[in-house]
Amino acid sequence: MKARALHSTVTADARLRLAIEEVDLGEPGADDVIVRVEAAPVNPTDLYLMLSMADLSRATLDGGALFAPVPAGVVAMSAGRIDKPLPVGTEGAGTVVAAGTSPAAQALVGKVVAAANGGMYATHRKLPAAAVRELPAGRTAEEGASSFVNPMTALSFVETMRAEGHRALVHTAAASNLGQMLVKICAADGVPLVNIVRRPAQVEQLRGLGAEHVVDSSAPTFADDLVAAIGATRATLAFDAIGGGPLASQILTAMERVAARDMTTFSHYGSSTHKQVYIYGSLDRSPTTLVRTFGLAWGIGGYLVSHALRKLGADAYARMTRRVMAELTTTFQSHYQGRIPLAQLLDAEVLRRCAQTATGEKYLVTA
Amino acid sequence: MKARALHSTVTADARLRLAIEEVDLGEPGADDVIVRVEAAPVNPTDLYLMLSMADLSRATLDGGALFAPVPAGVVAMSAGRIDKPLPVGTEGAGTVVAAGTSPAAQALVGKVVAAANGGMYATHRKLPAAAVRELPAGRTAEEGASSFVNPMTALSFVETMRAEGHRALVHTAAASNLGQMLVKICAADGVPLVNIVRRPAQVEQLRGLGAEHVVDSSAPTFADDLVAAIGATRATLAFDAIGGGPLASQILTAMERVAARDMTTFSHYGSSTHKQVYIYGSLDRSPTTLVRTFGLAWGIGGYLVSHALRKLGADAYARMTRRVMAELTTTFQSHYQGRIPLAQLLDAEVLRRCAQTATGEKYLVTA
Repeated sequence: MKARALHSTVTADARLRLAIEEVDLGEPGADDVIVRVEAAPVNPTDLYLMLSMADLSRATLDGGALFAPVPAGVVAMSAGRIDKPLPVGTEGAGTVVAAGTSPAAQALVGKVVAAANGGMYATHRKLPAAAVRELPAGRTAEEGASSFVNPMTALSFVETMRAEGHRALVHTAAASNLGQMLVKICAADGVPLVNIVRRPAQVEQLRGLGAEHVVDSSAPTFADDLVAAIGATRATLAFDAIGGGPLASQILTAMERVAARDMTTFSHYGSSTHKQVYIYGSLDRSPTTLVRTFGLAWGIGGYLVSHALRKLGADAYARMTRRVMAELTTTFQSHYQGRIPLAQLLDAEVLRRCAQTATGEKYLVTA
Repeated sequence: MKARALHSTVTADARLRLAIEEVDLGEPGADDVIVRVEAAPVNPTDLYLMLSMADLSRATLDGGALFAPVPAGVVAMSAGRIDKPLPVGTEGAGTVVAAGTSPAAQALVGKVVAAANGGMYATHRKLPAAAVRELPAGRTAEEGASSFVNPMTALSFVETMRAEGHRALVHTAAASNLGQMLVKICAADGVPLVNIVRRPAQVEQLRGLGAEHVVDSSAPTFADDLVAAIGATRATLAFDAIGGGPLASQILTAMERVAARDMTTFSHYGSSTHKQVYIYGSLDRSPTTLVRTFGLAWGIGGYLVSHALRKLGADAYARMTRRVMAELTTTFQSHYQGRIPLAQLLDAEVLRRCAQTATGEKYLVTA
């Protein structure tokens, strides 16, 4: 079976090449299904893989493909992908239009399913039947398109919190789609949550969703506000989507100030309360700067939902997936700024709009 | 029983006060011993607690006490110790001169013991019998004075490496007393070790001890040298005494470059090999800067030997202590730059010399 799929290439001469190319999916194997993709979101991770920080203001079209210059530094960091066309689109949903002979595959024919194995900016995608998740009856591909990355990441924050012995959370860029889901999850589960946002308007937005602790990092009182919120929640674990700059350090410092209140004897090593920040995004790509005035019981680490799911185990994964499917149009509803037909992904103007979305805005690629 | 002990105070008006004061130890309780302290090392951690970064060039003596101005920033960070005289001296050794009635305490009378409960810059120290470690027959107080901080920290690196599933180590400021111990431990245990030093002369020094992989961070080829050494050892865990600046980031980057060689398919998330740096010292007090180009499977954390020992458990602690005592004058021998009688700790010139020691140099406070 033939399909058309978007491919992104970083060339050795520092150019991005984006093209929609015909691919031959072949016939489905016994355990495979072929999904007609109907909706796939543009997540930050997709933007990075698709565009490699190319300068779209200098984009040109040549032979049906889009070309744009890529910063030399990005090329140096992309050794593994130079001149290799990569499929794009982490997740999406659509209808199973063909299936292999196995009962599991056959049972999915005609069903609306979601998948998160990459390559979803395409007309069709061949996938193992075990890799797709059937949506509940009545749910559309658009409703299921974003049912993996944000929902599973948000749920994994709470699961990780429990697994690592913390009792409350801090979340940054908290007005994001993911942040809104986390507000709802934490409210339902009774988990105290400190939301850090970057603009005053987002404070109101999150309060409107029922968030109790919302702190604006642009306020002059941010440091004290953060200590007050962490003091009220006793949060010792943070998930940070910003990554660069002083924010992770500020969070650890606020946690230590709260922990130090409970110390009965002075120690120049600081408190023994373990404080942890996981960086799961890079909205700020500048270096992370740690002003280490938060004692010695602290950690910072990279966080990828797939690594976290492996650690959490199969039971947690099944439990999380069931919850996402059951609450697809409530807790885990995504909001889209607009829809982009697949073919328009080669339009530099459209891509620039996608790349410039603010927190909480997101586009959906459609058939 | 009366003793004289050094106390360090940071005053609310931003001054350090150092004084040797008489303290009444009282009589030993049933399970206590009184140790006549004969030798106590000046570790970096002691310098920090004792001096609080005071400007010793402006020190004055007043009523037998030394006063020196402390930076305002340090005062702000020292909330827990303002105007409280703190005893100093993490560890040391001496002879048990009195004991309580319990058999355990009585058995120690006349014995040379080591302790690491603080307050060892004193003529005498009262301690629970369970908190002192008897030195092997024939070992002197000077030989046992540094038998906790450096030896247990060095051993804990190897124990932590095993407990967290790594197979080789990176160590920075590797020419230190602790670093020299680690070279010997790793050689004996067959643990591959990458030593990072800051001067060419230290390369020769460590090679003279039998170190195989020694990398000089002052060399223009440092980044590539580090990748080569990590490639040869497959080290994915580092212990860093420097703390500030780009070094932790450089280590993670080198580890990722090695891990990326084994990747068969490109991922813009980087390798799934977990790379860890523990910061256990702050020879560079400037901020740690992380240029996050090492994928998402990484962690950085503070490291304190007492927290690590608690995690490693009682069996590991007993095993490590036995080894230290058995190898006190070989693997765990400390080298001292000079000896300082307790009374001279109020001499600003002596203190400046202590505070300015280079890597591998250390002073011993004596009776």
